[in-house]
Amino acid sequence: MDPRVREHAETLVDWSARIDAGDDVVVHVGEGAHDLGVAVAAALGERGANLLARYRSDEMQRAYLRAHEGEFGTDPEFERALYERADSVLSLRGTRNTRATADVTDDRRQAYASARREIREIRLDTDWVSTVHPTRALAQQAGMSYPAYREFVYDAVLRDWAALADEMDRLKTLLDDGTEVRIRGNGTDLTLDIGGRSAVNSAASVAYDSHNLPSGEVFTAPADAAGRVSFDVPMTIRGRRVRDAELTLKDGVVVDWTAGEGESVLASVVETDSGSRRFGELGVGMNRGIDRATDQILFDEKMAGTVHLALGRAYDACLPEGESGVDSAVHVDLITDMETEGSSIEVDGELVQRDGRFRWEDGFAGD
Amino acid sequence: MDPRVREHAETLVDWSARIDAGDDVVVHVGEGAHDLGVAVAAALGERGANLLARYRSDEMQRAYLRAHEGEFGTDPEFERALYERADSVLSLRGTRNTRATADVTDDRRQAYASARREIREIRLDTDWVSTVHPTRALAQQAGMSYPAYREFVYDAVLRDWAALADEMDRLKTLLDDGTEVRIRGNGTDLTLDIGGRSAVNSAASVAYDSHNLPSGEVFTAPADAAGRVSFDVPMTIRGRRVRDAELTLKDGVVVDWTAGEGESVLASVVETDSGSRRFGELGVGMNRGIDRATDQILFDEKMAGTVHLALGRAYDACLPEGESGVDSAVHVDLITDMETEGSSIEVDGELVQRDGRFRWEDGFAGD
Repeated sequence: MDPRVREHAETLVDWSARIDAGDDVVVHVGEGAHDLGVAVAAALGERGANLLARYRSDEMQRAYLRAHEGEFGTDPEFERALYERADSVLSLRGTRNTRATADVTDDRRQAYASARREIREIRLDTDWVSTVHPTRALAQQAGMSYPAYREFVYDAVLRDWAALADEMDRLKTLLDDGTEVRIRGNGTDLTLDIGGRSAVNSAASVAYDSHNLPSGEVFTAPADAAGRVSFDVPMTIRGRRVRDAELTLKDGVVVDWTAGEGESVLASVVETDSGSRRFGELGVGMNRGIDRATDQILFDEKMAGTVHLALGRAYDACLPEGESGVDSAVHVDLITDMETEGSSIEVDGELVQRDGRFRWEDGFAGD
Repeated sequence: MDPRVREHAETLVDWSARIDAGDDVVVHVGEGAHDLGVAVAAALGERGANLLARYRSDEMQRAYLRAHEGEFGTDPEFERALYERADSVLSLRGTRNTRATADVTDDRRQAYASARREIREIRLDTDWVSTVHPTRALAQQAGMSYPAYREFVYDAVLRDWAALADEMDRLKTLLDDGTEVRIRGNGTDLTLDIGGRSAVNSAASVAYDSHNLPSGEVFTAPADAAGRVSFDVPMTIRGRRVRDAELTLKDGVVVDWTAGEGESVLASVVETDSGSRRFGELGVGMNRGIDRATDQILFDEKMAGTVHLALGRAYDACLPEGESGVDSAVHVDLITDMETEGSSIEVDGELVQRDGRFRWEDGFAGD
């Protein structure tokens, strides 16, 4: 086994999920993530944790959803009970075909997600971490050879997380203290109200309220948004390509949308419920190990020099005690490139980033 | 997809597990059982059942057990909660390497099994069914080509179960009414007390208290046993070959054992606990679709012309209300060939089978 698979598993179990002896750990194993599953099983065994592996097969899910008539039972008790008692949920993604569920209708998909909203909440209440095992299908989607893609993944995953956490803390402080963020770029001029919200220093560890490996972003939950935003980093949503999505918002709500490609998928996301018309998340990518978009949200949204906004659900960690943020059955991230000339991020009128470089970085083109 | 995979899934879901709309179904998917998993997912979707798939990976299990220091938590609550609320558990076996866990020590394996005894009980209280998807590894273990092995499996699985259930009912009646079974053959002369016990007509359906697909056996739980028995059908136990096991019993307890091959594995089974020194099951194979031993217990023990005895746990279905049978962390079947000349099964002195043919079958060599 490639020693990096073992390092990946150990980073996941120790740095990210902070697993202790006796923890009850559900591991979701994607169809192509078997090798990482084996390494994670060894790491969990070594730490004396309890392990229950779920098979997260895209092809089984497709077959199930297509065969079902569509009235799904609400939050099945056996599934709920499992997650209610789990300490951690480790998702090892890694598909063998990124389009495996492309022929499932959006209605069916949404009905399934809606019927499992409480279970999703319960899962998000555990020390959950999502990661990706490199597969040939993901390499293909990224337009890369398999060996090059593996390099790419491990460059992003096996970082000096403590050092990155320190850098990200600078941006977190600015966002925590700020009340208004303005994002400008090619086709974008968006103002977001973040007053009273807390930013998360997403250092790929539950100790930082951060649940993705790799991570390397700072995110918060806007209370309001207005303006226009163009998402020029192409991506795959629900198995279909979405390119050049453009949204217009008024009083926090999406009032108009278009896309150069995949507009119907975008529409199905926006129209899921009332929460899916709002931005539940503003995130700023800061992982310089991720040097290109690979059409995998877990990586793309962390790419240094990008900003992303998610339609739908807000993360509780960003909200003041007792306050509720955007609620929705979905959480779909869209990404915009901030390295395009003339792009900027300002907090309360103060320039924080220009053309993709932070003001504390080399190459920052001053005020 | 081979249409027989779909037929297999439908037989499993409809005839065997009797799944209804709204049932909570846990599906265990072996490493090589993906295709059957997809077909079962479709069948469950069609019937409106809820599905949660567990990944039963031999390689993950091996990694976990080897890395763990050996003090396993007792019946982890999250796993217990899942099975307590499940209506059915469908195990789709199908390994990619029948020796995948051969380098896990017996101690480690037993410690794990012992720590999960209550969960095992709970699982056995659901409408559980075990089946096997044909893999190349299983074909290899059977000494067969992959296409020939697939033929073999589907011959055994896709039968006229209602007709076989009728035939098996004849033997069930004899065993229910009888008090003593005597089995004789090459190296075997064993007497079993079955008074008051109920035989199960194992017609591959939970409706018959039968939990294997394929099935085709009638089994009961002996209360006592004495004599000597030679198991001449070779098999793999815990990843290792066992051949020509011979046991001597006195007052129901194994007092002596030898094996031509794999004696240490046999010893580790016998010495698990006090129940593993007793026979929890006597089974008589009646599936004529199974025409050879393939070193897979699920098939071998159903082979017409064989008898098997299990060391360890008895099935509750065979016991009178309120009475407890053999209790153990293990249930390991051993098989003897009754087609050897001079073999016979008698119930209360009456000849029921000779040289592998029942008295109601063509070719029976009379009294």
